[in-house]
Amino acid sequence: MSGIIKKVSVKKGLQPGALVHIGDKKVEEVKIEVIDYDAEHFEEKELAEFRETEKYIDESTVTWLNMVGLHDVQFIQKLGEHFGIHRLVLEDVLNTDLRPELDDYEDYIYICLKMLYIEESTGQLLVEQISLILCPKTVLCFQEVEGDAFEPVRERLRNSTGRIRRVGPDYLAYALVDAIVDNYFIVLEEIGDMIIKLEDELMNDPSNETLRKIYAVKREMVMLRKYIWPLRELVLKLQMSESPLIEKGSKIYIQDLYSHALHITDTLETYRDMISDMLDTYLSLSSNKMNEVMKILTIMASIFIPLTFVAGIYGMNFEDMPELHHRWGYPAAIAVMVIIAIGMVYYFRKKKWL
Amino acid sequence: MSGIIKKVSVKKGLQPGALVHIGDKKVEEVKIEVIDYDAEHFEEKELAEFRETEKYIDESTVTWLNMVGLHDVQFIQKLGEHFGIHRLVLEDVLNTDLRPELDDYEDYIYICLKMLYIEESTGQLLVEQISLILCPKTVLCFQEVEGDAFEPVRERLRNSTGRIRRVGPDYLAYALVDAIVDNYFIVLEEIGDMIIKLEDELMNDPSNETLRKIYAVKREMVMLRKYIWPLRELVLKLQMSESPLIEKGSKIYIQDLYSHALHITDTLETYRDMISDMLDTYLSLSSNKMNEVMKILTIMASIFIPLTFVAGIYGMNFEDMPELHHRWGYPAAIAVMVIIAIGMVYYFRKKKWL
Amino acid sequence: MSGIIKKVSVKKGLQPGALVHIGDKKVEEVKIEVIDYDAEHFEEKELAEFRETEKYIDESTVTWLNMVGLHDVQFIQKLGEHFGIHRLVLEDVLNTDLRPELDDYEDYIYICLKMLYIEESTGQLLVEQISLILCPKTVLCFQEVEGDAFEPVRERLRNSTGRIRRVGPDYLAYALVDAIVDNYFIVLEEIGDMIIKLEDELMNDPSNETLRKIYAVKREMVMLRKYIWPLRELVLKLQMSESPLIEKGSKIYIQDLYSHALHITDTLETYRDMISDMLDTYLSLSSNKMNEVMKILTIMASIFIPLTFVAGIYGMNFEDMPELHHRWGYPAAIAVMVIIAIGMVYYFRKKKWL
Amino acid sequence: MSGIIKKVSVKKGLQPGALVHIGDKKVEEVKIEVIDYDAEHFEEKELAEFRETEKYIDESTVTWLNMVGLHDVQFIQKLGEHFGIHRLVLEDVLNTDLRPELDDYEDYIYICLKMLYIEESTGQLLVEQISLILCPKTVLCFQEVEGDAFEPVRERLRNSTGRIRRVGPDYLAYALVDAIVDNYFIVLEEIGDMIIKLEDELMNDPSNETLRKIYAVKREMVMLRKYIWPLRELVLKLQMSESPLIEKGSKIYIQDLYSHALHITDTLETYRDMISDMLDTYLSLSSNKMNEVMKILTIMASIFIPLTFVAGIYGMNFEDMPELHHRWGYPAAIAVMVIIAIGMVYYFRKKKWL
Amino acid sequence: MSGIIKKVSVKKGLQPGALVHIGDKKVEEVKIEVIDYDAEHFEEKELAEFRETEKYIDESTVTWLNMVGLHDVQFIQKLGEHFGIHRLVLEDVLNTDLRPELDDYEDYIYICLKMLYIEESTGQLLVEQISLILCPKTVLCFQEVEGDAFEPVRERLRNSTGRIRRVGPDYLAYALVDAIVDNYFIVLEEIGDMIIKLEDELMNDPSNETLRKIYAVKREMVMLRKYIWPLRELVLKLQMSESPLIEKGSKIYIQDLYSHALHITDTLETYRDMISDMLDTYLSLSSNKMNEVMKILTIMASIFIPLTFVAGIYGMNFEDMPELHHRWGYPAAIAVMVIIAIGMVYYFRKKKWL
Repeated sequence: MSGIIKKVSVKKGLQPGALVHIGDKKVEEVKIEVIDYDAEHFEEKELAEFRETEKYIDESTVTWLNMVGLHDVQFIQKLGEHFGIHRLVLEDVLNTDLRPELDDYEDYIYICLKMLYIEESTGQLLVEQISLILCPKTVLCFQEVEGDAFEPVRERLRNSTGRIRRVGPDYLAYALVDAIVDNYFIVLEEIGDMIIKLEDELMNDPSNETLRKIYAVKREMVMLRKYIWPLRELVLKLQMSESPLIEKGSKIYIQDLYSHALHITDTLETYRDMISDMLDTYLSLSSNKMNEVMKILTIMASIFIPLTFVAGIYGMNFEDMPELHHRWGYPAAIAVMVIIAIGMVYYFRKKKWL
Repeated sequence: MSGIIKKVSVKKGLQPGALVHIGDKKVEEVKIEVIDYDAEHFEEKELAEFRETEKYIDESTVTWLNMVGLHDVQFIQKLGEHFGIHRLVLEDVLNTDLRPELDDYEDYIYICLKMLYIEESTGQLLVEQISLILCPKTVLCFQEVEGDAFEPVRERLRNSTGRIRRVGPDYLAYALVDAIVDNYFIVLEEIGDMIIKLEDELMNDPSNETLRKIYAVKREMVMLRKYIWPLRELVLKLQMSESPLIEKGSKIYIQDLYSHALHITDTLETYRDMISDMLDTYLSLSSNKMNEVMKILTIMASIFIPLTFVAGIYGMNFEDMPELHHRWGYPAAIAVMVIIAIGMVYYFRKKKWL
Repeated sequence: MSGIIKKVSVKKGLQPGALVHIGDKKVEEVKIEVIDYDAEHFEEKELAEFRETEKYIDESTVTWLNMVGLHDVQFIQKLGEHFGIHRLVLEDVLNTDLRPELDDYEDYIYICLKMLYIEESTGQLLVEQISLILCPKTVLCFQEVEGDAFEPVRERLRNSTGRIRRVGPDYLAYALVDAIVDNYFIVLEEIGDMIIKLEDELMNDPSNETLRKIYAVKREMVMLRKYIWPLRELVLKLQMSESPLIEKGSKIYIQDLYSHALHITDTLETYRDMISDMLDTYLSLSSNKMNEVMKILTIMASIFIPLTFVAGIYGMNFEDMPELHHRWGYPAAIAVMVIIAIGMVYYFRKKKWL
Repeated sequence: MSGIIKKVSVKKGLQPGALVHIGDKKVEEVKIEVIDYDAEHFEEKELAEFRETEKYIDESTVTWLNMVGLHDVQFIQKLGEHFGIHRLVLEDVLNTDLRPELDDYEDYIYICLKMLYIEESTGQLLVEQISLILCPKTVLCFQEVEGDAFEPVRERLRNSTGRIRRVGPDYLAYALVDAIVDNYFIVLEEIGDMIIKLEDELMNDPSNETLRKIYAVKREMVMLRKYIWPLRELVLKLQMSESPLIEKGSKIYIQDLYSHALHITDTLETYRDMISDMLDTYLSLSSNKMNEVMKILTIMASIFIPLTFVAGIYGMNFEDMPELHHRWGYPAAIAVMVIIAIGMVYYFRKKKWL
Repeated sequence: MSGIIKKVSVKKGLQPGALVHIGDKKVEEVKIEVIDYDAEHFEEKELAEFRETEKYIDESTVTWLNMVGLHDVQFIQKLGEHFGIHRLVLEDVLNTDLRPELDDYEDYIYICLKMLYIEESTGQLLVEQISLILCPKTVLCFQEVEGDAFEPVRERLRNSTGRIRRVGPDYLAYALVDAIVDNYFIVLEEIGDMIIKLEDELMNDPSNETLRKIYAVKREMVMLRKYIWPLRELVLKLQMSESPLIEKGSKIYIQDLYSHALHITDTLETYRDMISDMLDTYLSLSSNKMNEVMKILTIMASIFIPLTFVAGIYGMNFEDMPELHHRWGYPAAIAVMVIIAIGMVYYFRKKKWL
């Protein structure tokens, strides 16, 4: 279940920097893609073994190395050695249960983010960890599964539109992070739709099921918060970074990213307030219903119990009950009952219960 | 519904800086007004095409270019090119679902704010996004619909009253922001009136409807908070700004604006506390009523159930029930009932329920 | 009602710095008093027109100009011109719905504070805005009504006791602020007394009225918080100020004021916690009472309903009910009832309900 | 009652620095003790009048002047004049309703703290204010009553154990503050014991009394928070202080004090969470009980009301009721009742109420 | 019970730095182990007396001195004297009720942490305090009991794997802290499992026992928070430290540790939110059940009470009740009852209670 810490106990006792894949194996085979480009040139290829990568990563062109599936520990180790990535960073790449963060290791910048999806059929939140390592001429990208979120970036590279082909790997890294963040907006949009639907349901026909759904959304908000909240700090770090890896011209894009991050966290907070208010509303409505139920019971009981009592009296079998033999006895008893009933009704009207 | 993120998914996969209008098309036709002035001179005109604007924006006078409706993407693009506005900023101008913010791009300052109205008929909160770009001799202003909030500023410009005609575009930008902020006070005033009315209703005649209204105001407060909270930070940024676009003489006005922003956020917090207390009061009152209902039921049942039981006993048809044949049987039974009733009443009085 | 924003809409569309009195006219006629003193000299006078003030404010002695009532806009305008006060400051002086604040305008310091009273008859919180402007040799003071809070300061000036006659206008301003802050302690003392009384009532004889009173105090705390909270920041600003208007010897007094401000905000928080706990206590007590009511109902019903049923059976008119004709039928029925009753009582005792 | 602001209104209108004793007179006679020591020398004496003190405070030895009872205003005034203590500080010493704080007046450091006790018989929190003034060779200490918290410090001075006799008055001041802080641990320990006892009571035999006790502890926590919270800031100020009054060698002790302060505030927060959880538990248990009560009522009523109705039908006196005369009428009626009863029981079993 | 402050009162009145063991004696005999190593050399030994240690701690190799059991005060004192550890630090080592913290004493760094276990049989949280003192060539480690958390570190030292044998004592200290922090992940994993199980129980078969378990987990979270929260600040201090004791090459590991600390505190917060939501869910479900109970009672009572009343009427023994003698009297009465019953059922259907 999302939100609960993963089986890290498998690593218990291993030394820091030990390379172990933590998380579920989500794809059968590891797939390694390379996109190599500069303003004039573009090449896209799927690789079979590590040796092939060397051709691309030594060139002067910008290289985007994308790895889908994390269980090929050896490949990652070789890659790490080639680029001089610290073992601790490689360990983090393999551990899919990390907090989003950005660390600047001078020679490269390591970024860990969560890709979020809402599964259409169940409405559940799916989480995938994406690690980016920004090196001088290369961006290494590690994904758990193949998603379609980076497809537009690939498309832009292929079609040579915009800035992306003319500038360095920092802009590519920005474009990838931006693609992930754009996905957050889509997730928030879907949750927003759920909230609107639930508000509607709540106002028109609230049921136990509504309550269950509200709690389910609330639960997802807790998860979202966990995964999205560190984004703001991460982007701020990127903005404040004085690393030579980030060109000055990219700063304006990062600033834009920061506005998006603020907007997302603001929206999260607003949603939380809304859901909280919906729960309060549900409970108030429920308590009001209870009140109504009690009123009906009280009215019914308060009117009929005394009447039944009167009937009970004249159902007694005492020999010597003069009323029973009187000609007006029965009508009088009925009259008494009617008067009692009217009195009770009047009393409840005065109390505004009827 | 306000507060929920807008359909940003239309932009999915586009490159950053792609110019797409996000939001509802609230006016039929885009309208472009220009006001051009200095201390002696004043001209006000509605423009038909982009070429006409050039005449004004190249002059040495201060120019206020006001665009109502955002779906003429081409005009905005041309304008952006003329003034050297970054595509990311133009993208933000077109996206009506942004967080209020201020960005200083050295050559110009970009301000995004929300104009708020309470729709009189429904009491609902309406939100419109307003973008301002402060350039060296020009203020560009983008609105979704034509509101009357800027009319007083126009009036002051026309009638040449006050400081506004003698100083630069920074004061004009200030005047526009001030007009928006003044509107917040009016919105808060109207919500304040609602709160007073609701408090009154709550104390005198609370109903389910009262609860619904309190939640509706609470909901609006959540929205207001989202739109107004960033104002404080925005004005502070403006005050701290060392941009040459802002003359020293304007600083005192911005400081005043900051006091207003603080006052507004304080008032928002106070309202929140009030509404929160009102809800608690409602729930306490409701729980007290429930208590009262239960008391009445308990009293009625506790008094009459034993009496009915006594009547039931002497309604039994056993042949051999000596009391039934006794001369004082009936009066004695009645007496027992009266004693039981008095006992119960006494008990409840002692418990202070009666 | 206090806490709700005042009718600021009257100013809608006016230019910043437009002098309009916002708030209720609380006194019939504007009254202007002047106190002019130095170590040897003391003069106190009520003025009729603006020209008279000039005599005092040009002198080398310290002058305290006190204006009660704010609807003489012209006087304030002339005063402002004489002392070179910015129109925005004058606008703030006239607007009685401001947030307490301090602004340092180099040539003068503007302080806005709230004077608070508890109206004895109703226990309601009254708020009056007081503006102070500290100029090089003069203190301008603007009040809505004539209160007696400044009387001790006047008395100390008249009787030439203490430091106050020997030092400059900064100490006078301090003395006035100190008088206002001392009043806060008195208000907190009175609210403290209310809280003690309410706690007593709550423990001994809680009623709906108690709940209402607790909410009323809570409501006043919300207001107090709004008016008093900014004090801390205001005094800190004063303490940090490097304005030449504040002599070094006064700093120690301002530090003392800061301790008071901290004490007041701490006490406010403690009161809030207390009131919050009182509400929780009330609700718990109320819920416990409900429980007790339900228990009594359940006990009564559970004992007598089965008994009545037994009586009902032998009240049936079947021809062929052998028990009815048996000699021990009636005593046996009674015995069954007694056994049922004892069983129920035993059951409830076991559950500790009886 | 603790937590409520004291009668400060007696000072209304007095000038700042007016020496008035605020608080209860807790001892009959003011008692002045002096302890004068250096590494070789030790003297301890109770003084009768101010003149006697002069002998000690002019010496080169370290002097600890301890005053129990604060209503001898004249003595304090003389002392203040001798050591050049500002009147505002003396005013604070006399006001027993202050917030714990530390002020550095260059020539001396003023520390105000609360001594806390739990009264054994009632379990109530008692508060006493202790003021310390650290002068170059002297520590002035002012207490409301004579407590035994400083006795260990006296003992260590007398027996010449440890560092205390060799170093300056700053270490003595530290030792006194440390003694006060150690007392906080004891208070927290006692409250911890109460919490454990209450948790036990809550789990095994919760009653209204338990609720009352939990609220009483909660109330004391509010007070503790008020008195202890400022300690952290106070010790931090001491640690950051660059006053020549504090020798470098004492810094390590102050750092230790700071750890204690952090530990105390952490523990306060933990207790608050615990008490809060206990209240929630109580309310949940109480609500569960209510549920059970309601279930029993509903089961009893739902089973017997239909049975009684059936009995009622055959208790009717219509002439023409064929069932009454049928041979199997009575057994059939009984059978119907048994079936209804079994059906209801089955229904409630299915709902898991039985 | 964990979370409650320990019996510190035994130290009341002792001077600061007095060496007293505070806490339970968890092992019978104190055990002292030494591990001495450099890149080539490795020695591991259990020591009998203090003198033996000297051999190791004077060498140029790195020495890890591990002491299990804290009641041998003399040994600790001798050790402290040898390494020049301040008495206050030794006092802290002996006091097992401290807040996690790190103090840099220039010559050595003192670290206090909590080792946490979940006892398998009871699910209870066990806490053990671990103190580390990092000296130039030595790491002193003090444990209350012998745990197996450090075994992997020992194993890595023995087998000469990795960096650990080549570098200084700072890396050893890091490895020990890392082992403790890794244990936190395991504790969080176990609590995560409990939460999942409880969520399952809550959704499928909630009982009073579920509530009790949720509160138990909540209680443990309060404790965890107390013990783990300071970790973040502690590691940050270590990261920011400019102590020569920490080599530059270790910084990257400490940064990694900091990420872990952030992840742990984030997870704690997420768990808190989850548990909080679970409690709310329980209470809502419970309140919904109550509602259902009340509805059944109300429906049963509202249907049968009027019917019983009608039966009661015709059970009266008045002589003159014409209906009783009418031929269609009985069927008519039954018909009336059926109509009433149908009416009530219809009414409740319309209210959606049936």
